[in-house]
Amino acid sequence: MDLRIAFMGCGNVGRSFIAMVAEKQAELWEQEGLRLLFSAGMTRSRGGWVLPEGITAQGLLACGWPQADAPLPPGARRFEGSDLSYAATCPSDVLLELTTLEPMSGQPATDYIRAALEHRRHVVTANKGPIAHYYWVLRALAASHGVALRFESTVMDGTPIFNLKEFSLPVTRVKGFRGLLNGTSNYVLATMAAGSTLDEAVAGAQRMGIAEANPGFDLEGWDASVKASVLARVLMDADLRPPDVVRDGLGAQAMRAAHEALTSGHALKQLVEAARDADGGVSATVRLAALPADDPLARLKAGETGLTLHTDTMDDLTWIEGNGGTGQTAFGVLADVVTIARQYYTRKAPPP
Amino acid sequence: MDLRIAFMGCGNVGRSFIAMVAEKQAELWEQEGLRLLFSAGMTRSRGGWVLPEGITAQGLLACGWPQADAPLPPGARRFEGSDLSYAATCPSDVLLELTTLEPMSGQPATDYIRAALEHRRHVVTANKGPIAHYYWVLRALAASHGVALRFESTVMDGTPIFNLKEFSLPVTRVKGFRGLLNGTSNYVLATMAAGSTLDEAVAGAQRMGIAEANPGFDLEGWDASVKASVLARVLMDADLRPPDVVRDGLGAQAMRAAHEALTSGHALKQLVEAARDADGGVSATVRLAALPADDPLARLKAGETGLTLHTDTMDDLTWIEGNGGTGQTAFGVLADVVTIARQYYTRKAPPP
Repeated sequence: MDLRIAFMGCGNVGRSFIAMVAEKQAELWEQEGLRLLFSAGMTRSRGGWVLPEGITAQGLLACGWPQADAPLPPGARRFEGSDLSYAATCPSDVLLELTTLEPMSGQPATDYIRAALEHRRHVVTANKGPIAHYYWVLRALAASHGVALRFESTVMDGTPIFNLKEFSLPVTRVKGFRGLLNGTSNYVLATMAAGSTLDEAVAGAQRMGIAEANPGFDLEGWDASVKASVLARVLMDADLRPPDVVRDGLGAQAMRAAHEALTSGHALKQLVEAARDADGGVSATVRLAALPADDPLARLKAGETGLTLHTDTMDDLTWIEGNGGTGQTAFGVLADVVTIARQYYTRKAPPP
Repeated sequence: MDLRIAFMGCGNVGRSFIAMVAEKQAELWEQEGLRLLFSAGMTRSRGGWVLPEGITAQGLLACGWPQADAPLPPGARRFEGSDLSYAATCPSDVLLELTTLEPMSGQPATDYIRAALEHRRHVVTANKGPIAHYYWVLRALAASHGVALRFESTVMDGTPIFNLKEFSLPVTRVKGFRGLLNGTSNYVLATMAAGSTLDEAVAGAQRMGIAEANPGFDLEGWDASVKASVLARVLMDADLRPPDVVRDGLGAQAMRAAHEALTSGHALKQLVEAARDADGGVSATVRLAALPADDPLARLKAGETGLTLHTDTMDDLTWIEGNGGTGQTAFGVLADVVTIARQYYTRKAPPP
């Protein structure tokens, strides 16, 4: 079975995705009866192209795509319309929405997703803004058009969280959660614990490509707030927008002060917590917390993230992702594509 | 949709399962369109009964079942045949194989499972012996008869491991794993770390119902060996029998000596490790290991278990189960039953 993939944006995650598909194509065919073909691409720097019959990941790599100076894939023609008309009309079964994050508004990614769903394209996104802000609307839109909207990679890269809930935790209520979800904050705090100053730790994170030039979005808890909103919406069916998440005592000054005040045997972490209120709603906070050593989240190293789900069936389940990055995010996108193939298409048996 | 469940054995896990189904029946119906009915039961102390039209979990609880002095469920008749003929012929869609563990042979549970599969009954088991010893044979038998064999609860209670691999980690190779899989050993070692002697810690585990009267099966690493075999067989497609797992320096004497020799900042744990060899096979060991404090498995508390999967797609993923017990094991059985319903039966929409 062939599934045609269109890109919307192709930065580091997109590049990792193409490389992973090239590497895994034989296993996708043997285990899933699935061949992935790339039938359209749109990047900010190079505009769009379409190739209705599609090209394999190996073919894309062979012609140098997605490097900025690569020629169009053989046989492809330029797409001259707007980004929105691309999302709506480019030849594809699945649109991968991988544009640059604008997490506080969820735009323009939400409009792209909406256009694709309305034109009966499945959508996979690694973009947490649209899910945090418009999950209910987009979910309803996907359902009414008979297509899928999947977003495993929005929290903890590709670590199975939403797929876990859907496929492996039936009739389970998530009563709350707590986690260390922001990689930059975890890196900076773990590095400070090892003796660095805050500025040294931030500079180190920037050198490693973990932190943005302006790390405020991470250190002040906005990234964690958006992720908390996604988790609360999807796992707890809560109407919790990112600004509804209480951010308490964060930022550089607070981190320095809390680091000074830390008592022995404790670890300072940027902790996300969410719980259901007496009225049935969900409250969430992001704050600096001094965790005792026997807390499963206390010992997370730089580079690790973690999430504990409080459930009514399994009590506490904790995930620790050991080494997140764009490769893991790309895997979450691939897992979502495979799930769409399993759920919406009849599998053709591989040749004998 | 109705699914008829037959019990084979009904101890603590079976009791928890009935209670969970009674509690979750409304959600099973609303979310899965599924009604579970109990159509046969067989316990060592009370023999067997059959009731082809089935009875709800609430109905079973109302008549006192599975307590030893409870009457037969209303309308049920005694089953007079052998255990094996019960497994083969009792009226049911799914046999729950929950008999007492004989992990080193996998019998008689394996014969019950085989009989049920051959007569086109789906099987869910919490019994790790049959999977460790006969997984390939039983898997082939299930496939050739068009039915399911599921066993999520054989390792770390109901923590999604096998379901995770099947549904959320497509085209992923598990290159190896390491874990603390034996609850009794973890309890005893964590309690010794807090100042108890080995004998006090074992007595405490026995009082809490964690450890058997003879804790050797746990402390000498046999339980962990069987679990390592199940993980290696299912996740790594390896022909690794429990006796193939190297057990190194275990037992009470070794635990006392290793505890004495422990250096500060380290934690003593019964560690399972498995890796693929150069020749494509899989080697596994169970041993006492002094883990440094920043090892994700070093800080597991008494009552917790943990497993790190080394994968080619997600690097290291670590599960920590916070509070395992028969309720969690029962949930794994229920998750397997729901998966069978999803995979093999057409869902009937709940009434409006």
